Amino acid sequence: MTASECRFPVVHGYAAKAKDQPLVAWEYTPRPLGPNDIEIKIDHCGICGSDLHTIDSGWGPTNYPVIVGHEIIGHVATTGSDVREFKVGDLVGVGAQAFACHQPDCPACSRGRDPQCPHSVSTYNSRYPDGQVSQGGYAEAVRVDHHYAFHLPTQMDPEVMAPLMCAGTTVFTPMMTHGVKKGDRFGVIGIGGLGHLAVQFARALSTEVTAFTTSENKRPDCEKLGAHKVVNIKNEAQVKAARNSLDFLLVSTNSPHTDWNQLTDFMDVQGTIILVAAPEADLVISPFKLLLKALSVSGSLIGGVNDVRHMLEFAAKHNIRPWIERLPMDKCNDGIDRMRSGKIRYRIVLSNPTQK
Amino acid sequence: MTASECRFPVVHGYAAKAKDQPLVAWEYTPRPLGPNDIEIKIDHCGICGSDLHTIDSGWGPTNYPVIVGHEIIGHVATTGSDVREFKVGDLVGVGAQAFACHQPDCPACSRGRDPQCPHSVSTYNSRYPDGQVSQGGYAEAVRVDHHYAFHLPTQMDPEVMAPLMCAGTTVFTPMMTHGVKKGDRFGVIGIGGLGHLAVQFARALSTEVTAFTTSENKRPDCEKLGAHKVVNIKNEAQVKAARNSLDFLLVSTNSPHTDWNQLTDFMDVQGTIILVAAPEADLVISPFKLLLKALSVSGSLIGGVNDVRHMLEFAAKHNIRPWIERLPMDKCNDGIDRMRSGKIRYRIVLSNPTQK
Repeated sequence: MTASECRFPVVHGYAAKAKDQPLVAWEYTPRPLGPNDIEIKIDHCGICGSDLHTIDSGWGPTNYPVIVGHEIIGHVATTGSDVREFKVGDLVGVGAQAFACHQPDCPACSRGRDPQCPHSVSTYNSRYPDGQVSQGGYAEAVRVDHHYAFHLPTQMDPEVMAPLMCAGTTVFTPMMTHGVKKGDRFGVIGIGGLGHLAVQFARALSTEVTAFTTSENKRPDCEKLGAHKVVNIKNEAQVKAARNSLDFLLVSTNSPHTDWNQLTDFMDVQGTIILVAAPEADLVISPFKLLLKALSVSGSLIGGVNDVRHMLEFAAKHNIRPWIERLPMDKCNDGIDRMRSGKIRYRIVLSNPTQK
Repeated sequence: MTASECRFPVVHGYAAKAKDQPLVAWEYTPRPLGPNDIEIKIDHCGICGSDLHTIDSGWGPTNYPVIVGHEIIGHVATTGSDVREFKVGDLVGVGAQAFACHQPDCPACSRGRDPQCPHSVSTYNSRYPDGQVSQGGYAEAVRVDHHYAFHLPTQMDPEVMAPLMCAGTTVFTPMMTHGVKKGDRFGVIGIGGLGHLAVQFARALSTEVTAFTTSENKRPDCEKLGAHKVVNIKNEAQVKAARNSLDFLLVSTNSPHTDWNQLTDFMDVQGTIILVAAPEADLVISPFKLLLKALSVSGSLIGGVNDVRHMLEFAAKHNIRPWIERLPMDKCNDGIDRMRSGKIRYRIVLSNPTQK
């Protein structure tokens, strides 16, 4: 397949060209479509917290210009010569990863941990082995290795599924890794894009769900999402009552002011705090807080191919629905401003104009 | 059993009376022997790092005067009226815990996590429900709840077993909790009282053992203890070669200067760092270090009754032998000075004069 045979030999999108600048219309010539790649016409793309960190160079210097966006829903436009799993017109989703080696001798891929493949390429602001930089979903199209396009369940509105592709996988994967099960006491702190899905997944796993928030006005939403209990962490009495009450606490807040020692207070003996957000500040924890109750703090990064498939199946079966606000793609800067305001309920999904 | 019927109605020992003071001869009247308690004539007591932290008020204000010591070997002198498991003259060991409720409705004890029992009493510098302060093993005798006296294997020299009671349990328990098994790549950092036992236990579990040390002169000892590899963490090439090489890393160094981000570099995907020491400084870790390789940092505190029994059985079966230096009990201050020098190979055991 040559570039000229692809539907989008040049891709138009919205790029950050420098730190602290609004996104602007920009175009790039994508890398040639490899035999295992597919080209996807993008219909929708969620705005993830990672997008903002990258636009801001908050996680280290970004390679500008960058088109962010890794909660992509679209239709297959072109398939590489060796791709059998997809045909043109298939509805697919793409998450935060675009490539891994998937070789049997890869220490990560061979264990189903392809996000940690040494050759892993993120959907944007990352570099392919050929040196080309990956570009994301605030655009009309994207090309990814076929492992990283996912067939989608049919019972959900396509644009509603966009946030599942990153946020959904990010919260569900560690629940599986850590063997979260019926009856476990599961807390979620940070009721936003990730957290509002974590509450739903945890409830669907029949855990006892506690939502922790600083926004009293999110209480009714938390309950609607499935939380059995809601703790306002600005309320001392509620905080005190929640001590030693959890087996798991999923931390999906990006706040650099998280008090890790306070979080350990919520944990019961041998509990696990699962970090899925990437705050722009170090974790600072007293060793005693880990020792005295034999607690663990674990990180978890997105999910591998099998994790995403499992998540999509589980979400369809249990009717996990992202709550979204809709914006046209060309209003992406408005979406980003609204994300920064912290007022989203709970994810923005950008959509391209409907085309024939 | 009344106090007058006990063999040591007054207990003589060596106490810290204030921060930065040497230990001095001191005596106290122990709490009355309860029906479930036993009184033990102390033969030997190891010097544990915790003793120094407590003498120094390094973990917060100590309740002076305090007799430290919780690696105790002795003989049963008196048994409480309800004690059936022991008789006078039995050889027993006592570790870092002296009491827990062991009630079926206790959230900790009922799960075999009696170190986290809300009523737990440490062997020293801790308070019983009746308000009495516990005093430890740098003394002629100690009284503990019978759950916390342990029958000892007969094939090992009693004084050599002393360090097993705290250090041994502390390193072996998390190996069991985390399911460490044959073929796992197990690292130990801090080759001292705890670390030199961790290397032996890990080797006996048929793991691939790597010892990390800053002291090149400990290399031959590490090999003799069973390490397959020794990494001098002052040697850049060795540090580089050890990247991504471990499934587990047990941290037994109390250094407040531990670089937690560096430790994560040694871990392979989904690895677990197990903290068993209690440095007098917070852990500071970049969230990315946990996220990118899906790592865990877990604390572990001593071991419960079942853990200690399991450890003693395993140590006897696999010939785990603490390497000790011997000192008479009245030279406890010399032992403490020598501990502070960092030159111990690898544990000091204090002994009372042999009595009829």
